[in-house]
Amino acid sequence: MAKDLKSFARASSVAPCLRVALENWLEAQPRLQKISDDLNAGRMPSAEKVTDEKIFHSVLPRTWLFADGSAFIHHIKLVRQARKAALPETLLTVPLMYQAESGRFLAPTDDIPQRDFSHGTDFEAEVGVIVDHVPMGVTAEQALQHIKLIVLINDVSLRGLIPEELAQGFGFFQSKPNKALSPVALTIDELGEAWQNGRVHLPLDVRYNGQFFGKANAKEMHFHFGQLIAHAAKTRDLAAGSLIGSGTVANEDPTAGSSCLAEKRMLEQIELGSPQTPFMRENETIEIEMKNKNGESLFGRIFQKVVKYN
Amino acid sequence: MAKDLKSFARASSVAPCLRVALENWLEAQPRLQKISDDLNAGRMPSAEKVTDEKIFHSVLPRTWLFADGSAFIHHIKLVRQARKAALPETLLTVPLMYQAESGRFLAPTDDIPQRDFSHGTDFEAEVGVIVDHVPMGVTAEQALQHIKLIVLINDVSLRGLIPEELAQGFGFFQSKPNKALSPVALTIDELGEAWQNGRVHLPLDVRYNGQFFGKANAKEMHFHFGQLIAHAAKTRDLAAGSLIGSGTVANEDPTAGSSCLAEKRMLEQIELGSPQTPFMRENETIEIEMKNKNGESLFGRIFQKVVKYN
Repeated sequence: MAKDLKSFARASSVAPCLRVALENWLEAQPRLQKISDDLNAGRMPSAEKVTDEKIFHSVLPRTWLFADGSAFIHHIKLVRQARKAALPETLLTVPLMYQAESGRFLAPTDDIPQRDFSHGTDFEAEVGVIVDHVPMGVTAEQALQHIKLIVLINDVSLRGLIPEELAQGFGFFQSKPNKALSPVALTIDELGEAWQNGRVHLPLDVRYNGQFFGKANAKEMHFHFGQLIAHAAKTRDLAAGSLIGSGTVANEDPTAGSSCLAEKRMLEQIELGSPQTPFMRENETIEIEMKNKNGESLFGRIFQKVVKYN
Repeated sequence: MAKDLKSFARASSVAPCLRVALENWLEAQPRLQKISDDLNAGRMPSAEKVTDEKIFHSVLPRTWLFADGSAFIHHIKLVRQARKAALPETLLTVPLMYQAESGRFLAPTDDIPQRDFSHGTDFEAEVGVIVDHVPMGVTAEQALQHIKLIVLINDVSLRGLIPEELAQGFGFFQSKPNKALSPVALTIDELGEAWQNGRVHLPLDVRYNGQFFGKANAKEMHFHFGQLIAHAAKTRDLAAGSLIGSGTVANEDPTAGSSCLAEKRMLEQIELGSPQTPFMRENETIEIEMKNKNGESLFGRIFQKVVKYN
C-alpha cells in the first residue's frame, strides 16, 4: 500500500502471503521494500488505485499465535473494578497475557457477527507488533529486535461471558471471539520518531457510531513491546508471524476518552452510580485509526458493524 | 502409515501437509483412504519401511487452534486439591477449556527442552480430535460429525509456574509450553467399536522412565468430544485442522495409575502427608501409547526425554 493509502501493488512475486514472507524475512524484506519504494515514487506501472477499502483483508488473515498483553495499567484498574475483581499482586512487575484466537481474523471492514446480544459485545482498540522467529528465553532488549511490523487490532470482547469464564480459572475463551487487524502494517522505520522505547507514541482514534470515543496515546504502555514478547517467549519459541498485542490503549487523562465500552461504563458507574452506555447493539459501528502528526492515516482503518448472526 | 506401523507411503500428491488436506477434506479423504488401503494390502510399490521412528513428526507439526478441554473430573479434583484451589461451581455443566500453544508441536520423539528445572516439568497424557471447519454455534451432536481424526497428545506442563499464572486471572501461558502429538492419527472408522458416544473406549498407556505409570481408560470423559467442540465453537468458527484436547486422562480406579505427575503427587500427599515423586529431572523419559484389544499400538508412540535447554 502506498503511504497515502490511495494505491497498492501486489507482492505475490515475493511470497504468497505476509506470514510466509515473515518466515523468510531476511530475503523477503528488501524485495517488499523495493515494491513499496517504487509504489511511493510512482515507478510502479502495475499499481492499482484503491477504490474500495473492502477489498483489503487484515494484514494477517490468520497466524500461529496472538499473545495479547494488557500493558495499560489504567485499563486493568478500571475493568477489574467493573467486575469487582482484585488487582493482581504482580500488576506492575509481570504482564498480564492471554492466548487469543488467531486462526481467522475478520477483515478490517467485516461485520462482527453476534449470536446473542446478551453476551455484551464490546470493542477493544489496541496496537500490536508482528515478530519474526523469537527464540525461547530472549531478553526484553533482544526481543525488540524481533519486531518487524506494527498493526492496529480490534480485540472484540463479549463482556457478558467474561465473569463466569474467568471464575472457572482457565482464562478467556468464548468471551474473546474473532478479532480484526488493520489493512496496513508499518515497519518501525516508517513510524520514525513515533516509535520510542518499544512503544508507539501516537494517539489511537476511536469513533463509536461515527462520534468521538477516544484518542488515548499508545505511549502510556507500562510494559513495552520487548517486555511483552520476552514474557511470551519465556518457555517457548514464538513462530515467525506471531502477533503480540498491547491490550486496550488507555490513558489516565480523562479527556483522552476510552478505547472500549467497559471503561466508559466503569467511569459512569463511579460518577453516576451505574453504567449508562449499553454494549454494542445491532448495526452499531466501531472505527479505529491512527494518524501521524500531519493527520495522515497510517494503518488504514478498522471499521466494523455489529450484525445479528444467523 | 500401515496399520502395523511397519511401513508408510508419502501422500504429497494429495496435499502438502495434513492441515491443508483437512481444509479440503471431502476431496482429500478418499484419496488418502486409497493410499492407506493400498499400503495395508501390500499394493503400494513405493511403500517405505519404518526403520527409525524419529523420522516422523507430530501428525500436525502446527495448526491454527489447540483448544484443550479438561473433561476428566477426577483429574480436575486432584490438581485443584493439590494447589488448594476451589472447584468451579460449573464443574459438571460447563467444560474447562484453555487455548494452548499450537504454532509448533514438538515431534513425538523430540526432547522436551527445559530452561529451569524449578519450573516443575510434568507430562499430561491426553486424547485429542482434529476437526474440519466447524461453524459457530453447532450443537454437541452436530459437532461429532466434524471429528475427522483422533490423536494422542503430551500436554507438557510447568507446574511451578501455574499457581502464580492462574492467580493473575488470565489462565495459562508460560506454564503450558510446546506439546507433542502422536505420529499417527486415526479416523473414527479405524477405531471401530472403541469409539462410542464421542469418546475413545481404550486405556492410555503411560510409562515413566520405562516403568508403568498409568493405564487410565479414556472412556471416563465426563464431557464427550462433541460437547467440547460445541463449547469451543460457541462464539466463533473453528478453522479446519483445529485440535480439541480431552485434558489429562484420569480414572477413579486407583489401579489405573495416573497420566501426569501432579496427580500422583496429590495422591501421595493425601496418603503420606506430602508429595514423594519429584517433577521430571534431566534425562527422564515419558512414553505415551494406546493399544487396541489385540495389544497392537494404534497411534505409534510419543516418547520424549527432558533435557537442559541452552
